[in-house]
Amino acid sequence: MIDFYFEFSSPYGYIASQVAEETEKRIGRPMRWRPFLLGPVFKVTGQAPLVEIPMKGEYSKRDFSRTARMHDVPFRYPGKFPIGTVAALRAFYWLDDQDPKKARELAKALYRAYFVDGIDISAPAAVLEIAKGLGIDAEALAKALEDPAIKERGKKEVDAALAAGVFGSPFFIVDGEPFWGVDRLPMLEAWVRKGGW
Amino acid sequence: MIDFYFEFSSPYGYIASQVAEETEKRIGRPMRWRPFLLGPVFKVTGQAPLVEIPMKGEYSKRDFSRTARMHDVPFRYPGKFPIGTVAALRAFYWLDDQDPKKARELAKALYRAYFVDGIDISAPAAVLEIAKGLGIDAEALAKALEDPAIKERGKKEVDAALAAGVFGSPFFIVDGEPFWGVDRLPMLEAWVRKGGW
Repeated sequence: MIDFYFEFSSPYGYIASQVAEETEKRIGRPMRWRPFLLGPVFKVTGQAPLVEIPMKGEYSKRDFSRTARMHDVPFRYPGKFPIGTVAALRAFYWLDDQDPKKARELAKALYRAYFVDGIDISAPAAVLEIAKGLGIDAEALAKALEDPAIKERGKKEVDAALAAGVFGSPFFIVDGEPFWGVDRLPMLEAWVRKGGW
Repeated sequence: MIDFYFEFSSPYGYIASQVAEETEKRIGRPMRWRPFLLGPVFKVTGQAPLVEIPMKGEYSKRDFSRTARMHDVPFRYPGKFPIGTVAALRAFYWLDDQDPKKARELAKALYRAYFVDGIDISAPAAVLEIAKGLGIDAEALAKALEDPAIKERGKKEVDAALAAGVFGSPFFIVDGEPFWGVDRLPMLEAWVRKGGW
């Protein structure tokens, strides 16, 4: 199993969501998709969203598009960025407990809505709408988003990511070995094939 | 021409110094080696040395060794890290004005001294010793390290790196296109071959 951590507001996480399944198929190791929140992580690391850092921010904006084009992944820099993604996170884990395959589908649809169609997925209504479009029970999901048990589930997942040393998005852990960044997928693949080095 | 910016105290810069010439040969575009200082850059970006950042620091230490092993580059985490590298920088540019090929040789020797032999190259005496070992006139270099003109030359180079948007090490710029990190050399190579995308 490979843990694939991502934040719904992360451009590199989005790109990873579009290409990680190719890596997964090639190396034959299933991935567990695990959204988390960068906000609580930044509190621990003292870091800030990439685009807010002088110089690095400009570079990052350029690199988001360039990396997306390199992978033939459609990408449009969202009007509102970054955004809070706790509703998307909760929706994902609620669904993941019932149907992990469908949850992955939802994650990809949420990412496309935000990074291709420019939809602000911080709004629970947007998450419900997107879920509905995939045939997911939006009424049950609306209730779940307010359910303390689901809120707690989300919190536990974020804590687990922190405990695992996840400080950025995307982040992969395979056999205890961490890989940060979509640009490290080739290294991860080589690592798995060779059994490390 | 490809500008190759690096800081002498940067492990990824060191690894790049050991592998960038392979890229240079393969793509047939000469590189101009341009050491700079991360200190003044961090003042602008508000960033800190990688290893001082919670979580990211631990990951980085692991990744320095892992990346070095991947490239078959010898690497030992220095006892004192990071260090000030202004003497190394000044020595480089003093020599670069006379003999760029020899300056590159000096850069590689300084890097090896620090990241393989654990020599603290922040000390001018260590820089002189290493230069001497390469047949460089150590007496002339000792004078140059105190020469206001050389100090000014070094300062100008650091300012030029900042003006070019260099915020990390290593950093490459080819035809105005920036690439940050030794792990981005494959992307730089693809970019040059395809003429961008």
